[in-house]
Formats: sequence, structure tokens, C-alpha cells
Amino acid sequence: MHLLFLSLLAYTYQITFRRQEQQDERVHTSFKMGAIRVVPNKATRAVNLLRTIQHTHPPSCPCHSNPGHHHNHVAPAVSRFSERTSRRSYGTPQDPSHLKEYAFEMAASAIRFGPGVTQEVGMDLANMKAKRICVVTDETVDKLDAMRQVREALTREGLNFRVFNKTRVEPKDYSIKEAIAWAKPFNPDTFLAVGGGSVIDTAKLMNLYTCYPEADFLDFVNAPLGKGLPIERELRPLIAIPTTAGTGSETTGTAIFDLASRRAKTGVAHRNLKPTLGICDPLNTRTMPAAVKASSGLDVLCHSLESWTAIPFNERTPRPTNPMLRPAYQGANPISDIFSLNALRATVKYLPRSVRDPDDMEAQSEMLLASTLAGVGFGNAGVHLCHGMSYPISGQNPGKYRHAGYNIADAIIPHGVSVAVTAPAVFRFTGASNPERHIAAAEAFGVDISNVKRESAGEVLADALQKFLAELGDQPKGLKALGFKSEDLDELVEGTIPQQRVLMLAPGLAKELQQERDQLRRLFEDSMEFN
Amino acid sequence: MHLLFLSLLAYTYQITFRRQEQQDERVHTSFKMGAIRVVPNKATRAVNLLRTIQHTHPPSCPCHSNPGHHHNHVAPAVSRFSERTSRRSYGTPQDPSHLKEYAFEMAASAIRFGPGVTQEVGMDLANMKAKRICVVTDETVDKLDAMRQVREALTREGLNFRVFNKTRVEPKDYSIKEAIAWAKPFNPDTFLAVGGGSVIDTAKLMNLYTCYPEADFLDFVNAPLGKGLPIERELRPLIAIPTTAGTGSETTGTAIFDLASRRAKTGVAHRNLKPTLGICDPLNTRTMPAAVKASSGLDVLCHSLESWTAIPFNERTPRPTNPMLRPAYQGANPISDIFSLNALRATVKYLPRSVRDPDDMEAQSEMLLASTLAGVGFGNAGVHLCHGMSYPISGQNPGKYRHAGYNIADAIIPHGVSVAVTAPAVFRFTGASNPERHIAAAEAFGVDISNVKRESAGEVLADALQKFLAELGDQPKGLKALGFKSEDLDELVEGTIPQQRVLMLAPGLAKELQQERDQLRRLFEDSMEFN
Repeated sequence: MHLLFLSLLAYTYQITFRRQEQQDERVHTSFKMGAIRVVPNKATRAVNLLRTIQHTHPPSCPCHSNPGHHHNHVAPAVSRFSERTSRRSYGTPQDPSHLKEYAFEMAASAIRFGPGVTQEVGMDLANMKAKRICVVTDETVDKLDAMRQVREALTREGLNFRVFNKTRVEPKDYSIKEAIAWAKPFNPDTFLAVGGGSVIDTAKLMNLYTCYPEADFLDFVNAPLGKGLPIERELRPLIAIPTTAGTGSETTGTAIFDLASRRAKTGVAHRNLKPTLGICDPLNTRTMPAAVKASSGLDVLCHSLESWTAIPFNERTPRPTNPMLRPAYQGANPISDIFSLNALRATVKYLPRSVRDPDDMEAQSEMLLASTLAGVGFGNAGVHLCHGMSYPISGQNPGKYRHAGYNIADAIIPHGVSVAVTAPAVFRFTGASNPERHIAAAEAFGVDISNVKRESAGEVLADALQKFLAELGDQPKGLKALGFKSEDLDELVEGTIPQQRVLMLAPGLAKELQQERDQLRRLFEDSMEFN
Repeated sequence: MHLLFLSLLAYTYQITFRRQEQQDERVHTSFKMGAIRVVPNKATRAVNLLRTIQHTHPPSCPCHSNPGHHHNHVAPAVSRFSERTSRRSYGTPQDPSHLKEYAFEMAASAIRFGPGVTQEVGMDLANMKAKRICVVTDETVDKLDAMRQVREALTREGLNFRVFNKTRVEPKDYSIKEAIAWAKPFNPDTFLAVGGGSVIDTAKLMNLYTCYPEADFLDFVNAPLGKGLPIERELRPLIAIPTTAGTGSETTGTAIFDLASRRAKTGVAHRNLKPTLGICDPLNTRTMPAAVKASSGLDVLCHSLESWTAIPFNERTPRPTNPMLRPAYQGANPISDIFSLNALRATVKYLPRSVRDPDDMEAQSEMLLASTLAGVGFGNAGVHLCHGMSYPISGQNPGKYRHAGYNIADAIIPHGVSVAVTAPAVFRFTGASNPERHIAAAEAFGVDISNVKRESAGEVLADALQKFLAELGDQPKGLKALGFKSEDLDELVEGTIPQQRVLMLAPGLAKELQQERDQLRRLFEDSMEFN
């Protein structure tokens, strides 16, 4: 395993390029990790092939002949560009949407990290010459020290700001629309979000729709529920100050909410949505109750594990016809890997300590750093099954489960709990797709992997996860404990199917819809009860 | 060592906060890594202390009582802000310039990576609605495939661009001024740099001084040679396409050149100088001659090693009084560490292969990725002695040494050769400052470190470096082989002293000027000849 990490950057990303030659004879050449691993003296030929794929037709492989065959959340947007780009980028008109990806892009907010660093935000805003600042928070955080520091810092600089504190925890489309309606007449030139993921995500969408005042709310929402249009305009600066160690939203271009009419979680995802700066102050996460720390931390755990095990970027289709269309959730890549694996190791080490002892400031601080690192990882690679399946779990909650330690009146399955509850079944299932990565993940949990066979990779990681959850304490041992019954399974499956943006990154998931339904049903069944 | 990596994020960054209490009784409390490692039940007190330091006077420790005692390249700028900020940020007027840093900030350009990805740049510029594009390159690169791809991509999109191809390799202030004079009347709204570090750095400065047309050239140049003013304006978008795997300039806010009148290398360094996007295309680095690959790769090696071993961010003084004054070269921190150590491992593995076999596309590609990762690492942590000492080596070149494999008429000690030649002596010297990190670095070179003692850490790493250089081939075994004699040592030392921006990050280097001179002299002496 030691070797495993040393060779992290060397992990194989198999790219298979196909070329339709004159006689329709196809040449298959294998490339490795962002580049090329062929017999050396064939490299020149390989480069010629690489150049050639820019100029030839896509393969006529039967698996690619049906446009509806692959799930493709950016399809609507791609089709808007493909004709134009094909004329410009390629010798002859063609449809490159069946080609696999060949590149990846990493983008993250600037991150400032340190105890007490919240106090600098006034100077940042003054440096940015902000004249009308919209501070976004919620009623709970508004009473905490983080917001006190923020008000002091902004007042000290004599800045003009207004506070919107009506953000809803687990935001709905209507709560976001209310926030946007509040922001539009104020017309801020700068946004400052102070809170957990719900606050930061709401602020991102307030920013988006004040910069696109004419847009329909569904224009930028992920397909298929929305139109999934790319964000072409530069948005206004947004500074995010997280008060939980979980979402990583301070570094990502993702904003998640419930689309109430469709009873589905969805969101907007585009690099231009990401904050300008994330200010990570470990003094701000101290106030989380233990139960919130635990579920936030389980979100970090799944961000790391899912992005680490997502399909490689160069297995994703379609190849975007314009770099603007390259999704942020692009699959695992050599840079996201570094973030994801480091965040996983840190979470395994520090989450139990941070939950157990609120005064263990090292653990609190390391968990905030881990959540940010995981944010950079999944923000540029994506998540898959745990997240895709979590949305109907949290959203449907047929037993009106209310998680212990959450001091709110409503029933709630916290996001982190809903992602972690399927994790053992999910990684047992995905293990076969990339045993090395699952074994590396198991080792991060402290498993002695010296005698683990490749075929047991998923099982071993699932066992490690179950043990970790049990030792963390107060976690439901399956969906049954959350109040789900077998008659709820169909609706869980149907609530997951729209999450194509993340399901397309799930290794081993069938492309055919009925097969996919069957696999998801089995995953939910396997998640009903565990040890 | 395995454990060493697993605990990467846990590396100790000792912060000592001091508080002048009512009776001038000082309380010393130790904190660990971005946060706090104290007896748990003392955490509340620790937090109070943290808050308190925002409001109390600096300590009167005698070591801090002399303002000239510490090297401080941002001092002129800090003093411009400190009075104002002290009134605003702190309860009572004070001089916080003797406080240690308590936070770090990570910022990097977006990075797109993939073979053939150069062709996307036309669409990027069209997406950015660029109307007047200044393409910066040099006469050599202008004839290569990279520039052919760029011209095709820009022409395909019908973009308006002009090419400046007179960039000088190892730029001088006058060559940069010529480039700026060329750019000003064109008044580009976007810059595109295609080339090695010299080209990208020149483009950064063309961008800076067209955005500050009224500024004097020395205004932003690093102190003490220039005024070291911070860059407050947002510059125009700059896309960088590297054609060498070395500089990492596509991700950093640094631009380096020779200040001819002072016979010294210096530069401009600020986050706002960094490119918007780095487009890393492994097909563009294939054309480097083997000797250029080797010396570029040695630059990557030293970027990784120096940033990994630089003093921790929270040992740096002064604490900036405004976040705008936090230097990019801020010392090692938990995020830069991840980049630096990964880049080091990749360089050790792939540099020899990439030099040996130009058709080993995997190695070429991995070296380009490593140079970018190292760029993010040192761009947010800094370099120290090897780089500080390299500038007079390359600049003075008293023996008119011309490195084999460089097809230019002039004498040249390539940058990578000049940084690597002192590396064995440097890390032998710095080993005692942080034995764990030096041992971890030695292990990255494949050394069995199971029985290495802490006191041998520097020696072991130096030996590993010498072996690596010897096996890489065609590298000078010391300054003597580059034509330096013992009578040149004084001038080498005097040429290094102005490099305070990097020397301040050197662990173990004395603060007192004569001691520092003596240490530097010994380092040059120890670099005269090795095995």
C-alpha cells in the first residue's frame, strides 16, 4: 500500500482512442494517465493519432450508435454547441458527443485558513472596494460569534452591508427564490456567506440570479430537472466563511436545494459559481453540537470516498465541444485524487476525536481543513452513488425520523447521515470496478491490507466503513433504523434516477435504465440493515 | 516513514502566541498545526488567548525589540498600513509587525491538463469575449507546433490577436521594458503566453504594467531592490500555455528577471499576477532537447524540496496587517505540503525517464504535471536557499560556462543547473531544522530510511541528491565544474544577500547579517565540488 500511494500520480487512467481509418478499419491504442503509455518507439505514431482524432469521424461502435444510450446531463447544452464547434474545430462536420474526454480541469476558490482569520474579512471587502455587501446567514448562525466577528470587521472598515438571515437549513427552491427576491432590489456588488452549506449554497444562487435577473429559475438548474445552461457571465465576488466542517461549499461551484414540486434534490453546478475566497476559521466550527459534527464529518467522508472512486475523467462521455461545457463533476483525475485521499485519511483520524471532545482543537481544526480539501477533490471530480441515493432518503423520510442531537422541531435525516447510510452497500458494489482504490481506501481506515485479495476489495472497505460508523456512535445501522420499509424501496429508486449528474460517475452502474433501476434497488435493499 | 506520510496533515506547525498580561507576566501557550494542541480542558482558555492577541500589545521579548533584526521584505508596504490597521483592527495602537503569522492562504490558477488541449484556447478566449489579444512567445517557440496550434485555434474563432515573439530567454529588465512598450499602444484586453518561464513571466509583467501605465518599473519589484508595493488592481485575464516542464509559472503569481544595473535576479510576486488559466498540454513539451528537459526538471526538484523544507508559515514574521500583504511565499503549510511532496515523488520517478527517452510519453506527461503541482506548492509556500543562491551563480558565470546541449551562442548556466548545484550542501545544512521532513524527502528518493537517525537527516538527503544528479547525467559536480574559483566566493555571497524574499524562508539561516554571510559562504564552499 505504501507503494500504492507513492504511485498515486501514476494511477492508470486508461484512455482508448479510436480512429476510423480509410478502410473503416479501427486502430485501438492505449494511453495511460493523461498521456501515453505505449511501446516507446510507437510514441510518434501515438501523437499523430492524437492529432488525427481532432479531424476524423467518431467510431461507429454499436454501443455508441444510440444517442440515448448513455446518461448525459449536459446533452442539451452540448447539442447547442456541437454543430458550430464541429465546423470550427474539426475538418468535417461531425458529432463528437460520443468521444471520451481527454482532459481535466481543476479550479478552486482561494482558501485562507487560520484561527481567528474571520476578522480579516472587513479588510478583504475594503480591498475589493465593495460598496453594497449582501451578508447571507441563518438565524442560528446570526447569534454566534462568527457573525459577531463579521459585523465587527465590516463596521470597523465602515462598509455598507445588509444581513439576510432567513436562509433555510436544507434549502428549498421557494426559500431560495425568497432570498433572491430579497437580494434583487438591494443589488449587491459583493456577497458574503457565513454559515454551513445551506447558507453558502443559497448565497451562490442569490449571486447567480441577481447577475442574470432575466433568467428563469430552472435555466441553470441541472438537467434533466432544469435546463442545465452553462454560466457564461462572471458573477459578483462571493466570500464564504464556513461554520461547519462538512460541505466544502466554500471551494466548489455547486449549490444544492430541494425542488419541492418534483420532490427531488437538485442544484446548479458550474465553475463560475464558486466563491472568490473561502475563509476557514477553526474558531467558527467549535459551536457545532456533537451530532452536527458527526453528520457533517460523514459528508466529508463520503465526498472523499466517492470522488476517489468515481469513474476516471477520461472514461466520461461526451467530450465537451467547448471547454465551458466541461462539467466540474468530471470524474477522478490525478489532482483531485491527491485532495480526496488526503481528506479521507484526515477524516478517519480526526472525525471521531472531534465528535468525542469539543475541546480537542487540533481535531476540530483538522476536520475543517479536511472538509475544505475534500471540497476541492469532489468539486473537481464529483460524487456518485451515496450522494445520488441520499437525496430521496432525506427528502422522503416516510417515518418522520428525527436525528438525535438536532435541536429542531421538524423531522430530519441530516445530509451526512443519509449519505453514510448507503456507503457500506455502495462500496461493496463498486469494489470490483477498481479494487486498488478500494483497498487503498480500506487502508486509510487502518485495515491491514497485506493479504486482501482484489476480489474482496469492496467487502473489505464496506466492513471498515461499518466498523467506523459503529465506533463513531449514534449512527443508524441502515435504512430500517431511519424508518424505511420494503414498500418504500420503489420510491427511493425513482427518486434517485433523476440524479444523472452524479450517477453518470458511478463505477459499475448499468447504462440501461431498467438494469440501473434493478441495481439501485439492490443497493437500497442492501442498505436496509447492517452491523 | 509510511506513518510519516499518513500524518502529513498532522505535521507540527508550532505556533507560540504571546500575551502581555496585566502584570507584564507573559503566558506562553503552544498550538499545533493551524490550530491548537493543548491539554483539552485548557482549550477554552486557549481560544480566549487567541481572541486576546487581537487586542493586546506585542511582547517585549528582547529578540523582537530591534526592528531591523528580522529580515522582512514586505516591511515597507507593511509600514504603510500598520498604523491605519492597528487603529481599526486592534483595541489600542500598536506595531503588530513582530507578531508571527497565524494563517495561510492558498491560491492557484485554474489548471487544464490533457494531450491536445492547446486547441481549446481559441474557444476559451471567445468565451471570455476577448477583443484584443496579446500573444506572447519567443522566436524559438513561435516556430513550434504549440504556436501553430495557437494560431489555428485563434484564427478559427475569428479572434483579433497580435503576436509578440521577442521575449528574451532569462529576461532582463530592459527586455521586459521593451515588451511592455510594445504592449502599451496595443492595449490588449487579454494576454496569452505560450512558452517557458521566461515567456510567461514576461507576459505577467506586460499585463501588470499595462494595467498600471503610470507606475514606475520598480514600484512592484520585490524589496529591497524595488519598492515591493502590493498589486491592488485586478489585472487583465492571462492564459498561460507552458512549453517546458519546469517553471510552474502557469500557476504562480511570480515573475523573475535580471535587474541588469544591479547585476541581480529579482522579480515581482503577488497573487494578483497569477494567470487565470494554465493550459498544460503534454504534446507541447515533447520538443524540449534532453538537456533542457533535465535542467527544467531539476528546477521542479528544487521547487518541491525547498517548499517542503521552508520554514512553516506560522514561524514567519511579521503577521500581515492586511490580508493583501500576506506574501505568496508564506512558508510551508498543510496544503502546499501535499503538492510539494507529490511533485517531489513524481520528479524522482519520471525525470530520469523523460530525459532518457523522448518517446516515453508517460514520463513527459507526468513531468509536466509534476512541474504544475510543484508550482502550486512553491507558489504558495516559497523557495529558499537553492533559489536564492542560484541567481548570482547564473548571473555571474565568471568562467563563461556554456551548458552542453543548449544550442545558443552565449555562455549559459541554465536556471535548473544553478539551483541543483548547491542542493546537496543546502539540504545537508537545513537537515537539522526539521529532520523528519528531510528524512521523508530522502525516502522519496528511494532511500531505505528505517535506520536513519535524526541527526543524519541532512547528510542522507544530500547523498541521495548527489546520487540522483550523477545518475541523471551531464550535470556539473559542483561550482568548480561550472568555472567558479575560490576568489569568486565573496561575490557569490554578496549576490545572494539581496534575495531576502527567499532567504527569510530558509530554515537555520542566521538573522544577523555577518553570521548569514558566513553561512552562505560555507554553503558556496561546500558546493564547489561533490561526488
